[in-house]
Amino acid sequence: MKNGLLLDAGSGGQASRRLISECFFRHFANPLLERMDDAARLEELRSPIAISTDAYTVTPLFFPGGSIGTLAVHGTVNDVAMLGARPQYLSCAFVLEEGLSLELLDRVVADMARAAEKAEVLIVTGDTKVVPRGACDKMFITTTGVGGIFADPAPSGHNARPGDAVLVSGAVGDHGLTIMGSRENLSFLTDVSSDSAPLNKMIAAVIERAGPVHVLRDPTRGGLATTLNEIAEQSGVSLVLEETNIPVHNSVQSGCACLGLDPLYLANEGKCICILPADRAEAALAAMRDFPCGAEAARIGAVTPAEKKPRVILKTRIGGSRILSMPEGIPLPRIC
Amino acid sequence: MKNGLLLDAGSGGQASRRLISECFFRHFANPLLERMDDAARLEELRSPIAISTDAYTVTPLFFPGGSIGTLAVHGTVNDVAMLGARPQYLSCAFVLEEGLSLELLDRVVADMARAAEKAEVLIVTGDTKVVPRGACDKMFITTTGVGGIFADPAPSGHNARPGDAVLVSGAVGDHGLTIMGSRENLSFLTDVSSDSAPLNKMIAAVIERAGPVHVLRDPTRGGLATTLNEIAEQSGVSLVLEETNIPVHNSVQSGCACLGLDPLYLANEGKCICILPADRAEAALAAMRDFPCGAEAARIGAVTPAEKKPRVILKTRIGGSRILSMPEGIPLPRIC
Repeated sequence: MKNGLLLDAGSGGQASRRLISECFFRHFANPLLERMDDAARLEELRSPIAISTDAYTVTPLFFPGGSIGTLAVHGTVNDVAMLGARPQYLSCAFVLEEGLSLELLDRVVADMARAAEKAEVLIVTGDTKVVPRGACDKMFITTTGVGGIFADPAPSGHNARPGDAVLVSGAVGDHGLTIMGSRENLSFLTDVSSDSAPLNKMIAAVIERAGPVHVLRDPTRGGLATTLNEIAEQSGVSLVLEETNIPVHNSVQSGCACLGLDPLYLANEGKCICILPADRAEAALAAMRDFPCGAEAARIGAVTPAEKKPRVILKTRIGGSRILSMPEGIPLPRIC
Repeated sequence: MKNGLLLDAGSGGQASRRLISECFFRHFANPLLERMDDAARLEELRSPIAISTDAYTVTPLFFPGGSIGTLAVHGTVNDVAMLGARPQYLSCAFVLEEGLSLELLDRVVADMARAAEKAEVLIVTGDTKVVPRGACDKMFITTTGVGGIFADPAPSGHNARPGDAVLVSGAVGDHGLTIMGSRENLSFLTDVSSDSAPLNKMIAAVIERAGPVHVLRDPTRGGLATTLNEIAEQSGVSLVLEETNIPVHNSVQSGCACLGLDPLYLANEGKCICILPADRAEAALAAMRDFPCGAEAARIGAVTPAEKKPRVILKTRIGGSRILSMPEGIPLPRIC
């Protein structure tokens, strides 16, 4: 154990089987996974189905509010939920570096198991590759989620309509700033932690109480501003936001001010954007606020016709307005 | 272009979108992928469903007979097919190293697109992360496949029964030896190439013509011997093989002799093991032989009751017999 993970643990032989039974099966235990065939059999999945995949490469592996393990479950669960689906099953593939601490791997896998249990999804199949020292930085995890779509019609980034209200399920920027603070040991950011959370139950409640919504998207890489730009472009509309209504924690606001960052461009891992007819906005907000992850939900703007081209416009606190453009890149890689 | 991939290409911003449209969408073009929502919507998938995932970390990225791109499609397509399913959709997640040649990435993605077209599967959703130089070795790809199970009852490693025949769809060891030869520049292995191929159409023909089969498994990492050991253990039976009947190309046999390797423990990427009632073995072999990937299909042994414990026994050319044990590890990492 004290020498860490050996290459043989990814070989498919006895050493692989020990890793699988002593680590993965111990935490993820369920009958579908334990069949150990080349693929898992899913009985209870009804068309239409949503499928989403994400590779998680975040560094550091553990940070305030979560870990690569919680992200790998929440991120994919949320992406499936954004199609108006109930996430039911996950697959996971690990690329692990030779010499990785087995204790650390065990903690990540335990985090994944707890996150999956909380989100009520089963991890049903997986793969493990071990690469030589230096061929990857500790570990990468790819998860794929599937689930039946219950929303009819289903939400899509293409469906925002002039007159719709734009909601966000809570304060933005916490995840991005937390990763930056953890990586750089910024001691003035001690009161910031990741918002990593599963949103599937909140989404189901919103659709149940407010009816079908036009758009659901989670503003991860590139943050709120980037995701809203994508929606504006896909739907061919403009989005007009009220800066005073966008929830941002004081700690995030002040941390961003110190670092010269804009919280609207920082990644989130437990928030969603919801766009729906304005007359149902209050019902959707009330449904969100019944959940801890939606307690700070707010109506932040409205959809308008695009004038020359689709834009995201921010009406600022001081009464001006500015265009929130699509960023070229972001300053921080490996944030999720 | 000549500086290679920039970190910004994984940021979620404009640079990401250019990579997605100029590389991934150009090759994978299909309406489901191009929706660009957080998840893809699959209409034509009927329960029960098979799902399988694999991370591909092979080095070198290109080798005689294939590339990481062909493997990433064939490997997952085959795993889904092994459950008696028709692979229909794939997701793919890339972890790319900063500075990676864009020309090289384009070649890999083109290989994936061709392999998917040949296997008649659609790549419907994906993710791209770019990590800093040194945080991964060029590229890793994780694919997840889903498809409806048509075999009833479906095959499983648990279903081998005494009296069944053991078939293999062709010669073994080519992929493993090819990777070893490419990596070490072994010039005497010039006539060996990977068997990487999609098996889904052949599997469908076998089940159509020979009826439901008991076991289907593809002997990848650890090769034929390791996979047969897994089946013996899962089914609680022994497997008795006739060495003279196991197809091994002369080039592989002689390459293995030079290197002190056993072809029965080398990885394959376009072969399957099929175990079914003996009276239907000839029908299954005939179905396999109708396909180029099954041209060398052979009946290699029989299932017997386990005596003390499940074993894989090889009756050798010279009339003796030896136990093919489960290996502890394998000498070559990053073979797939």
